[in-house]
Amino acid sequence: MIPDSIKISNDLSSELGRFFFDRKYSKVAVLVDENTERHCLPAINDLIPEHWLIQIKSGEVNKNLETCERIWGALTEASFDRHGLLINLGGGVIGDMGGFCAATYKRGIDFINLPTTLLSQVDASVGGKLGIDFNELKNHIGLFKEPEMVLIAPPFLKTLPKAELRSGFAEVLKHCLIADKDHWKDVVSNRWDDQDWEAVIQHSVGIKASIVAEDPTEKGKRKLLNFGHTIGHAIETTFLNSEKHLLHGEAIAIGMICEAWLSFKKLELPKEQLNDVEGKLFEIFGKMDLGKAHYQRIAELCTQDKKNQGNVINCTLLKSIGDGVINIPISIGEVLDSLFYYDQLNE
Amino acid sequence: MIPDSIKISNDLSSELGRFFFDRKYSKVAVLVDENTERHCLPAINDLIPEHWLIQIKSGEVNKNLETCERIWGALTEASFDRHGLLINLGGGVIGDMGGFCAATYKRGIDFINLPTTLLSQVDASVGGKLGIDFNELKNHIGLFKEPEMVLIAPPFLKTLPKAELRSGFAEVLKHCLIADKDHWKDVVSNRWDDQDWEAVIQHSVGIKASIVAEDPTEKGKRKLLNFGHTIGHAIETTFLNSEKHLLHGEAIAIGMICEAWLSFKKLELPKEQLNDVEGKLFEIFGKMDLGKAHYQRIAELCTQDKKNQGNVINCTLLKSIGDGVINIPISIGEVLDSLFYYDQLNE
Repeated sequence: MIPDSIKISNDLSSELGRFFFDRKYSKVAVLVDENTERHCLPAINDLIPEHWLIQIKSGEVNKNLETCERIWGALTEASFDRHGLLINLGGGVIGDMGGFCAATYKRGIDFINLPTTLLSQVDASVGGKLGIDFNELKNHIGLFKEPEMVLIAPPFLKTLPKAELRSGFAEVLKHCLIADKDHWKDVVSNRWDDQDWEAVIQHSVGIKASIVAEDPTEKGKRKLLNFGHTIGHAIETTFLNSEKHLLHGEAIAIGMICEAWLSFKKLELPKEQLNDVEGKLFEIFGKMDLGKAHYQRIAELCTQDKKNQGNVINCTLLKSIGDGVINIPISIGEVLDSLFYYDQLNE
Repeated sequence: MIPDSIKISNDLSSELGRFFFDRKYSKVAVLVDENTERHCLPAINDLIPEHWLIQIKSGEVNKNLETCERIWGALTEASFDRHGLLINLGGGVIGDMGGFCAATYKRGIDFINLPTTLLSQVDASVGGKLGIDFNELKNHIGLFKEPEMVLIAPPFLKTLPKAELRSGFAEVLKHCLIADKDHWKDVVSNRWDDQDWEAVIQHSVGIKASIVAEDPTEKGKRKLLNFGHTIGHAIETTFLNSEKHLLHGEAIAIGMICEAWLSFKKLELPKEQLNDVEGKLFEIFGKMDLGKAHYQRIAELCTQDKKNQGNVINCTLLKSIGDGVINIPISIGEVLDSLFYYDQLNE
């Protein structure tokens, strides 16, 4: 079910060689941040044609129009025509924003993504969602377009700090929770250091790709992937510029606990499954104190979620582990209750 | 050959009634500038659902990211979800920029275009090109996406200043020059006040639609439509912020003369046809003194044209009137010569 344009391979040399073998680009640029320039660029530098380097600062706070202007400006300065190629080498920020810039530069040039984090390898790599944040709203401006190739190379994970690897693991767990009960059991029973990352990625990308194939532009089934994200995104946004700053997966882990509790309340997710989800997520991600002062802001941000219709917050919940259900309307009050529930688990 | 989504009609009421009859939008907004708010909005105000009004300043100088931020901001403030609709009521700037904002807001909401100028009715209305200017480069950032409907209402032309009507007429003439010799003869032999605008629009949109249908993303044949635009765009950009400021069609008329001369030089366009083109265009648009001081800047801008490959300027020229040819490489020197040719015609 994984589309041909997505390659999961340890062998960068063959895959890049094959890609460039029968394509002729007028110019090539590589988009990096300070981390991927240092840790990942050396692995591909000699495997791709002569290229321009476009450097941006890492981090979600820079996933904005201002950085896009820098990227568009760099392509313009290098006189890129429509037959140019942009290689996005980095995590989700680089892939989403670089893809958006490529898809809109002169009404669209080719781009390929080389995701370097677990998060982007199992999540952003599939489904053609491109975009940037706007007015503090995540991925508020963007579009759907598939890269010419997504090359997922597990060796890049060795360059990642543990916290980043863990952040991506939240999406692996989400894929299990919405669609694959058996894989949930396997993945959570393995010790961290014993995970076979290539197999984990293969399986996780497979789940996401199957869902996306049925609903590429998110009219229906694709919303399954939103589990944990309605509240998780709102939490991520709330603490984006604060000292409690959370990685995406850390916020989604909290969102999944809140939404698992809502699933228990509204869809009769069995109590022992709720406890299982909570237990495993706490074990991996630890606990955080959200703080009552932030509840209102988090709940308000939930109303801005792209999957909503009008004032109704549309949430994806679980009937049971491995069985997600889309379009469950929840109220602001229910969001507040779920945040309260999460925080009291700490006590 | 005109696609179903494009309606040419004097009857706004029926067309809008039909459109909204079987569609349910969560919210509707109308994008206007100060001119269309005053002269065109009253004609549709009661024919569309309750709506938000988004006002921007008219003019190509405002077709930029800053204005997009205002439009995206207004949609956000009004809590538009993905099931909203944006109605673009205005000329090319409103249609291109409003379409771009709609196509990228929350990864895309529906939009319809009601072009109110002759230029946008015969040109921007067909082909799904959306975008904005960037770093003084025209339509440098954008994408291809078709509106849900384009409603071309000739009565809007009555609200236009003569200069604006004439500007749109340049594109009508261009369509004749690249694809329809007989229509060229008809159109240029009619007195201005005797033009049957509905018939002119119908014919002109038909030519453009046939060409676009064969090549929606401009890999080949669509470049025919670029006749007059390689040099014309560069002239328009050069004088954008100066006191010699030209309307789009005025700049394209000059570009068509320069490129007709290049056609005579490089493709053996018959001398009498060159004279015919020059004569008619001068008659309608008058003459302008470009001024040698600007030649270099104009020529350099030609190298930034989106249709180029690498450093070669790719131009669309004429083998004869009604018979355009794409992908003719021209040098910077040839551009300079053609500008010199144009200016000496004044003497």
